[in-house]
Amino acid sequence: MAKPRLKIIPLGGLSEIGKNMMVLEYADDILIIDAGLMFPEEEMLGIDLVIPDINYLLDKREKIRGIVITHGHEDHVGALPFILPQLDVPIYATKLTRGLIQVKLKERKALTGAVLKTAQFGAKIKLGKFNVEFFPVCHSIPDSAGLIIETPVGTIVHSGDFKLDYTPVSGEPTALSRLAQLGGEGVLLLMSDSTYSELPGYTPSERVVGEALERVIADAPGRVIITTFSSLVSRIQQIIDAAAKHDRRVFIIGRSMSDNVKMALELGYLHSPEGVLARLDELKGLAHNRIIFVTTGSQGEPTSALVRMANRDHKQLKINKGDTVVISATPIPGNEAVVNRTVDNLLKQGARVLYDKILPVHVHGHASQEELKLLLNIVKPKFFVPVHGEYRHLSYHARLASSVGIPEDNIFVLEDGDKLEVNPQSARITDKIAASNVYVDGLSVGDIGSVVLRDRRMLSKDGIVMVIIAVNRQTGKLVGRPDIVSRGFVDTREAKEMLDESRDLVANALDHGNDRLADWSFVNTKVKDTLNKYYYDQTRRRPMVLPFMVKV
Amino acid sequence: MAKPRLKIIPLGGLSEIGKNMMVLEYADDILIIDAGLMFPEEEMLGIDLVIPDINYLLDKREKIRGIVITHGHEDHVGALPFILPQLDVPIYATKLTRGLIQVKLKERKALTGAVLKTAQFGAKIKLGKFNVEFFPVCHSIPDSAGLIIETPVGTIVHSGDFKLDYTPVSGEPTALSRLAQLGGEGVLLLMSDSTYSELPGYTPSERVVGEALERVIADAPGRVIITTFSSLVSRIQQIIDAAAKHDRRVFIIGRSMSDNVKMALELGYLHSPEGVLARLDELKGLAHNRIIFVTTGSQGEPTSALVRMANRDHKQLKINKGDTVVISATPIPGNEAVVNRTVDNLLKQGARVLYDKILPVHVHGHASQEELKLLLNIVKPKFFVPVHGEYRHLSYHARLASSVGIPEDNIFVLEDGDKLEVNPQSARITDKIAASNVYVDGLSVGDIGSVVLRDRRMLSKDGIVMVIIAVNRQTGKLVGRPDIVSRGFVDTREAKEMLDESRDLVANALDHGNDRLADWSFVNTKVKDTLNKYYYDQTRRRPMVLPFMVKV
Repeated sequence: MAKPRLKIIPLGGLSEIGKNMMVLEYADDILIIDAGLMFPEEEMLGIDLVIPDINYLLDKREKIRGIVITHGHEDHVGALPFILPQLDVPIYATKLTRGLIQVKLKERKALTGAVLKTAQFGAKIKLGKFNVEFFPVCHSIPDSAGLIIETPVGTIVHSGDFKLDYTPVSGEPTALSRLAQLGGEGVLLLMSDSTYSELPGYTPSERVVGEALERVIADAPGRVIITTFSSLVSRIQQIIDAAAKHDRRVFIIGRSMSDNVKMALELGYLHSPEGVLARLDELKGLAHNRIIFVTTGSQGEPTSALVRMANRDHKQLKINKGDTVVISATPIPGNEAVVNRTVDNLLKQGARVLYDKILPVHVHGHASQEELKLLLNIVKPKFFVPVHGEYRHLSYHARLASSVGIPEDNIFVLEDGDKLEVNPQSARITDKIAASNVYVDGLSVGDIGSVVLRDRRMLSKDGIVMVIIAVNRQTGKLVGRPDIVSRGFVDTREAKEMLDESRDLVANALDHGNDRLADWSFVNTKVKDTLNKYYYDQTRRRPMVLPFMVKV
Repeated sequence: MAKPRLKIIPLGGLSEIGKNMMVLEYADDILIIDAGLMFPEEEMLGIDLVIPDINYLLDKREKIRGIVITHGHEDHVGALPFILPQLDVPIYATKLTRGLIQVKLKERKALTGAVLKTAQFGAKIKLGKFNVEFFPVCHSIPDSAGLIIETPVGTIVHSGDFKLDYTPVSGEPTALSRLAQLGGEGVLLLMSDSTYSELPGYTPSERVVGEALERVIADAPGRVIITTFSSLVSRIQQIIDAAAKHDRRVFIIGRSMSDNVKMALELGYLHSPEGVLARLDELKGLAHNRIIFVTTGSQGEPTSALVRMANRDHKQLKINKGDTVVISATPIPGNEAVVNRTVDNLLKQGARVLYDKILPVHVHGHASQEELKLLLNIVKPKFFVPVHGEYRHLSYHARLASSVGIPEDNIFVLEDGDKLEVNPQSARITDKIAASNVYVDGLSVGDIGSVVLRDRRMLSKDGIVMVIIAVNRQTGKLVGRPDIVSRGFVDTREAKEMLDESRDLVANALDHGNDRLADWSFVNTKVKDTLNKYYYDQTRRRPMVLPFMVKV
């Protein structure tokens, strides 16, 4: 019998940011790494979320030994509420990550029956033929992990999302010595974070931000409003520390921020000296230079406290002249415009606004080029698969790997669905399975296809024109003039004449022949052709024309 | 009689990028500076272009002495074809800028009757009570100008878009000594470019790019494909120079690039040694390492040669392994995603792709903070108005001005429509006129209002459901079940049952009472309420529901 082969199949997270999911398959065992979601791109109109396509896994359910999660960010855990009902398998994660998953499953009513297991750093978890060990890495959320996976063909190292922060604010530095030890023993395959592979040099330590934030807090004449990601617990810790030092009180605003702070305090990932954290009812009478607000809104989310303040739309909180607003985050690609507008609106109300372009009030959580090369150097893998990033990031990471001496034939830039077979001696892509985008829109998962999206795109550009054609049931003749209703096409008052004229055009087109208007496809085509041409000539626009026949 | 006062009114270009237009008014004389367009923001669905609102000028037509144009970029000249038919006034511009305007007016069939005058650097042009002198500035298009405007109340300096390049590739450095001389004589008001006021330090010289491009061209093993803005003549010059040095031939691809190169050669702004520029029919048989293509597409424009190559959609040109693609530009805000996708697609076909994140193959054309402070220092204006940029850029520029000693009370961050009155002793905002966005969509200018855009937004999110209700003309009763047609809402096959159910719901809702269905507003509201609730419960989506009644 042929020896079973190890297969590596990315189901998401390679050709686009987010919705990370990697499948490892060996004989009768399957291991899944991460289950993330992606926020929709501009042309995915009306879509709420995008998750990986797990069709490949559905008829292999009984082989799946578990889902191991590297950390608690949406692009690594966000798809769990949607896929768990289909794949009833245990989830393994570190303590805080587990806590975050629990909250998320509860929100989406998918917690019942879910099996959540806590992984300890350094301990081995046996999952079929796979032995998995979590190791600590630094990233922009505590308790982030990389994975050491012993397989029958060799050891695999998965970096998770990471950077090398030698002075992390919370948790341990990335476990370099453990990785160096593995490198000495021999690593078959490294999968490593490519998100910032375009960036030269080293990513600064989280401490740099602490120093900048402390200076801002010390110097601000009035209130300080700081917005960041609610999962960036180390950032919140640094704010609390600076507040304590400069005799300010910290008010946590907004539900997701409050929930996360509460859980991080309970689980021991966040520490606050007595009398620093405050409730909103303690605000009254407090001098402005003793106040810090911490809130979400760093991505310009319309319902966040910060954006509502910027739009003069928040009931309790108004921006005052003398306020200092700190945006301690960078916009996720696609959010730049709304974040910029928020900054503009805050400035117009007289606030001072600080953001990473003008002060180091944010550092990101991913390794830059020198760190990536360092990891490649100490892990010394035989094969290399860049993960986490868009194609150009993976591509660039592959070049880095080649520059530190990994043979080009041993580097694989995969796309979602590529099936890579790895043996101790060789590796190659043997197959490609379907792994497209699955859209979540409202309550349903996967029902939105290309037709609905194409219609939404067309509607969004030039609107719609409905044509209601009444036809006599007996004679098959047109009754009266067709009616026309339009939305999103033209100003219906200004264009009244044109719309009226188009009714006559349709009437003429349909009355012309003496045939019965029985053939719907003839009527449909005739009306569309007539109006498409007329409207384009008149306006250079192409609304969706939708004829409808009523028999009377 | 009261002395007439000088008024400064921005009609565009302050609260948003682009559509720059500044009005200067003194007694019976009006001077307009620039007439730019802006590309639509994400939420301006289906809109082609945005131009300034010139309603304020329409009943003052006979006072307007001219439009002076600082340089030939779209955000300074693009609105001319749309406003010239309404304001029949002469245009003043330097030679190349004039050439570009001519091309643009011709394209839009607005050249007939237009009066275009060439402005010489250093010469004075009398326009009513205003004396205008153009002075050279460095920017990312040749022949760029700043303006010195003598008015009855004092001298105004307008920087245009500028940077301080002491080693420009074409044209003269920014005229610092002329400005220093003016500063000595006394300047009443400075208006200065704020686009890069967030950026510390100095903007690098265009020469830096030349060196990087030359290295790329020298080292590339195969063809080099360079994409940049078609108006960036100095960049094209540097490519031609490097090509000549390294024995390559340059093929200009695409109409706008070819047109601009042709004009720049004719007007003497571009110089090419014999045998460097080549026609496409000379491509055959040429070794790959002797080929350079220069093309547009740096903004991910779907019809550009580069994007079509990236999508394997170009008839003549295919990407080969070994090609080097250089994106010698940065994405304009909003274009990041399409540019990134183009890079990914080029990489997938085996090209090497270089862009400004990984090599200095582009520098921008605007002054950074130290240059802005230098200008403020030598011009020493009494009053300061930051121009060109979004609110945060103006705001930051105002802080810079304050940091070099201009009293805060003498600095005015204006929004579009603010009317600033300036006297030798004092200045203040006295009024605000309407100056909103005017949308160009297809053939019409200004007919698209907030209702049409709101409809397009709603349609784009969750689509539309049309409900056709047949009512008996005599009895006023419902005839049969209402029909339902949807687009962009759900997959109509998968959701057949739900759509069917909703027909019954409407029938029940309308049949319930025994009244005649004569009151359209009752029927309309009833149908919308019923379906909005039902669809939201079933899908968590909110399609536009559009009932229509047919009398039969």
